[in-house]
Amino acid sequence: MTDWKTQAQAYKARIAAQIPPEWRLSPETLANLPLNVTRLPEDSGLLTAREKEIKTLDATALAAAIAERTYTAVEVATAYAKAAAISAQATHAVMDFFPAEAVAQARALDEELERTGKVVGPLHGVPISVKDMIALAGRARTCGSLAGALDPALQPAGDSVIVAALRAAGAVFYAKTTNPQAIMHLETNSFLGQTLNPWNTRLTPGGSSGGESALIAGGGSVLGIGTDIGGSIRNPCSNCGLFGFKPTAARIPKAGNVGGMPGQETIIGAVGPMGVSARDCELFISAILAAEPWKVDPTMVGMPWRPETAVFSHGGARPRIGVMWDDGVVVPQPPMRRALKAAVDRLKSQGYDVVDFTPYRTAESWAILHKLYFTDGGAYVRGLAAATGEPILPLTEWIMAGAVAEDAAGIMALNRARDAFRVDWWAYFAAQKVDIILTPAYPGPAPVLGTSKYWAYTALFNILDMPGAVFPTGLFVDPKNPEDRADREGDREWLSDEDRLNAARYDAETFTGAPLALQIVGARWEDEMVMKALYGVSEAVRA
Amino acid sequence: MTDWKTQAQAYKARIAAQIPPEWRLSPETLANLPLNVTRLPEDSGLLTAREKEIKTLDATALAAAIAERTYTAVEVATAYAKAAAISAQATHAVMDFFPAEAVAQARALDEELERTGKVVGPLHGVPISVKDMIALAGRARTCGSLAGALDPALQPAGDSVIVAALRAAGAVFYAKTTNPQAIMHLETNSFLGQTLNPWNTRLTPGGSSGGESALIAGGGSVLGIGTDIGGSIRNPCSNCGLFGFKPTAARIPKAGNVGGMPGQETIIGAVGPMGVSARDCELFISAILAAEPWKVDPTMVGMPWRPETAVFSHGGARPRIGVMWDDGVVVPQPPMRRALKAAVDRLKSQGYDVVDFTPYRTAESWAILHKLYFTDGGAYVRGLAAATGEPILPLTEWIMAGAVAEDAAGIMALNRARDAFRVDWWAYFAAQKVDIILTPAYPGPAPVLGTSKYWAYTALFNILDMPGAVFPTGLFVDPKNPEDRADREGDREWLSDEDRLNAARYDAETFTGAPLALQIVGARWEDEMVMKALYGVSEAVRA
Repeated sequence: MTDWKTQAQAYKARIAAQIPPEWRLSPETLANLPLNVTRLPEDSGLLTAREKEIKTLDATALAAAIAERTYTAVEVATAYAKAAAISAQATHAVMDFFPAEAVAQARALDEELERTGKVVGPLHGVPISVKDMIALAGRARTCGSLAGALDPALQPAGDSVIVAALRAAGAVFYAKTTNPQAIMHLETNSFLGQTLNPWNTRLTPGGSSGGESALIAGGGSVLGIGTDIGGSIRNPCSNCGLFGFKPTAARIPKAGNVGGMPGQETIIGAVGPMGVSARDCELFISAILAAEPWKVDPTMVGMPWRPETAVFSHGGARPRIGVMWDDGVVVPQPPMRRALKAAVDRLKSQGYDVVDFTPYRTAESWAILHKLYFTDGGAYVRGLAAATGEPILPLTEWIMAGAVAEDAAGIMALNRARDAFRVDWWAYFAAQKVDIILTPAYPGPAPVLGTSKYWAYTALFNILDMPGAVFPTGLFVDPKNPEDRADREGDREWLSDEDRLNAARYDAETFTGAPLALQIVGARWEDEMVMKALYGVSEAVRA
Repeated sequence: MTDWKTQAQAYKARIAAQIPPEWRLSPETLANLPLNVTRLPEDSGLLTAREKEIKTLDATALAAAIAERTYTAVEVATAYAKAAAISAQATHAVMDFFPAEAVAQARALDEELERTGKVVGPLHGVPISVKDMIALAGRARTCGSLAGALDPALQPAGDSVIVAALRAAGAVFYAKTTNPQAIMHLETNSFLGQTLNPWNTRLTPGGSSGGESALIAGGGSVLGIGTDIGGSIRNPCSNCGLFGFKPTAARIPKAGNVGGMPGQETIIGAVGPMGVSARDCELFISAILAAEPWKVDPTMVGMPWRPETAVFSHGGARPRIGVMWDDGVVVPQPPMRRALKAAVDRLKSQGYDVVDFTPYRTAESWAILHKLYFTDGGAYVRGLAAATGEPILPLTEWIMAGAVAEDAAGIMALNRARDAFRVDWWAYFAAQKVDIILTPAYPGPAPVLGTSKYWAYTALFNILDMPGAVFPTGLFVDPKNPEDRADREGDREWLSDEDRLNAARYDAETFTGAPLALQIVGARWEDEMVMKALYGVSEAVRA
């Protein structure tokens, strides 16, 4: 065993040891897990009836129930700690687990409520899971590499600004979740191994916030913190059938977090919620912004959450929707087409004004964006791996392929190209006279592990910095449904080589049970409008 | 004569030829100009009584008078075109002059008002002068270099976003104003020669928006567009006794403009108004933001002008003021100390809560900021000069001295250092519990040409991205006032070598008549609060 492997094994063993013996699944159970492990906590026999009840609520309902003293924060923290422990044994979604601290924190909140009769904030007692790269005081951070895990400088000196705001609002922290090497896969694989999709463990939960999506979909979390620089909130929410919201990048605090290329600003990631309801996404954002975090965070704008600005300029009472059936480069795999078609039918039947949205400059968007990701040519990522001998994983090599080390003049030119693209694309968008675009967040359901190689459905809206949200349609891949049969050669013309490759990666049997989610996006800074649209559209689609 | 000189002369001759013969000053007049040329338009005999009357109004009053049909837009445009032509012959503040276009534009506005009975917007008929680097459709741009002046690619394809917004609000354009080589002097010297301070033509009007300050103080403009990445709005307003406002950088549109390092984002400049009243500064900003320019401009945030957010958290009805008597490195020259002392006395006598503000990490701020300015080591600026053989001017060499060509990793490290500095300094500021800092914008009145070599009084608030404003105190350097006597060796201890050098650059006789202005700054994003403070403080100080 080489040294990096020993160290990685030790790190994994430490994580495993954090699970109390009484919450461990038996070797027999682990050896015979079903493909779908989303009900594993409920089916484990380890949860009480009250804990199962707690797990039926979204964060908004949980906060209300705790405020009304239906449940104590300790009960809720215990329920989610248990469920996370159970679920993570199947999905490997957790990289730091600290239930005792959570219970202690919850107890203090219970005592505060008891003493004052008032909640400390809108998230009083709500458990929130936290992505690896986000700084949580006293807890681990790897940022996806063994070198990061071992680097004392990378271990948080305190809460990041977002965590501090959530903690002040009453959130309880109990688990940190995995992210992939370089924090730049639409999957979640690192020296800690693969994180699996609880709906179908052959598939990826997505990434880079795939620990979050796996934990939430697996029932081990109700609300989590994700980040998104190319799809890393929306992709895992799509893969796992969750709600997720990627705000305009500068609206949510980032200070204290460590991304894949710390200090690079050619393209800036967004931080946002991943969860089980639209209202939880809004609760998360509004609670954070109520803390006025811009006073201490240089990465964000001084803009409160302004629901009153949510106006559908083109639609009126409801958003006018442009449907982007494909992005002009890759056609979504059959079940995703089915889900989009069903959504459009439902929206139309409920009176929504829905028009087609012709894709525009997708390939160029990716050509520019790809250059913005690794302006050092990948040296930082390779340096981290080299420091321990940890191998560069295939998806890391893939995303870094062709990366060029830029000098200052090159970076200046890239910034200008990015802004010129934004100006042009935004003008195109404005000319379509729709409030939101409805489109998949990935050209298919959750891919088989190691095959997530098409980013443009989400990444387009990163280079454009347009806020986007993902919601579950309530539909799943069904091998018995003839519409879900894979596209084969001759079925249709391929838009591109990537289209052909993407089609070939899918077959209904392998993907069985994968949830189907969709994405909406709106104009930059119109986060409140996109949120308002999310409520209506997600409800209409699932009606 | 070398080729660059021939070309520069030709460019200057073209500018001179734009002045209609009837507005040209005689060789005798030009040979015998007084040191103070601020009244040159009025004293020229070329302005009618009505034109002189027009020139007594600020932009807000002008807009009201035009709306009420007291004056036509043509009358106003003519008055300012004349005054600009006259003043610029003494100060060389103009690099493109187009009175006929202005009158045509004004005529169209007059006709519109006549036809509809309504103004097109809040700036209907208000003449606005435009800094060289700002794109104005059909007009010249040099960005401070001969190569820029000759580059067809640099000539604006159309209005920049800010100009389009001002034009839509009814502004009339008639002159573009000089900026220095590299757009990075606190003076205004380029291949077009020196721009002079109309209060005392031995002195610099400041920079880089020194064409604006010279034109406004010289009576040739009432309101202009400046930009500020190290003091370039506030410094020239200080040197020329004007009002100026540097907003939080991302609040005012920049798209279409070309700065000194196009595409560099390590430090971002702000665009803002330069003028003769606080209310004109607010009129300028509110008119621009009313156009919702963020919908087409990637450089700015989607934040309307929100006067209702202007709250003095520490002061109540009036701002609590922290006075930074010096920045810890360089003590202001004696008349500036006198002006600050007088301001504090007046503020206190009117009941303002005024406390001392101890300077903090000024030298470090400059050490970091200086590295952010030329991340290519100066290659772009040197390349522009080399393209024509134009020499690099001494102040350009001075500001670029020590510039290092950074790679991507270096730029990432600089961005991190910048943000860490911001977080630390903002925390220090918050701990002082003041709403605004009151301090000079330069450690002295307008310097003698070629000697403006201390940026920190303004540049500190660029690295911090804190909004700031400058206002005239109504005081001037007076050689008869013993308080204005220069500091000599032994008078006081020098804080630093720079302090000693700064003291040595001043003497009362040379600086006679230079106006004395002061600066206020507030927390990032609190532009509206700083604006509100500007009204009260500037009025109290001048009372």
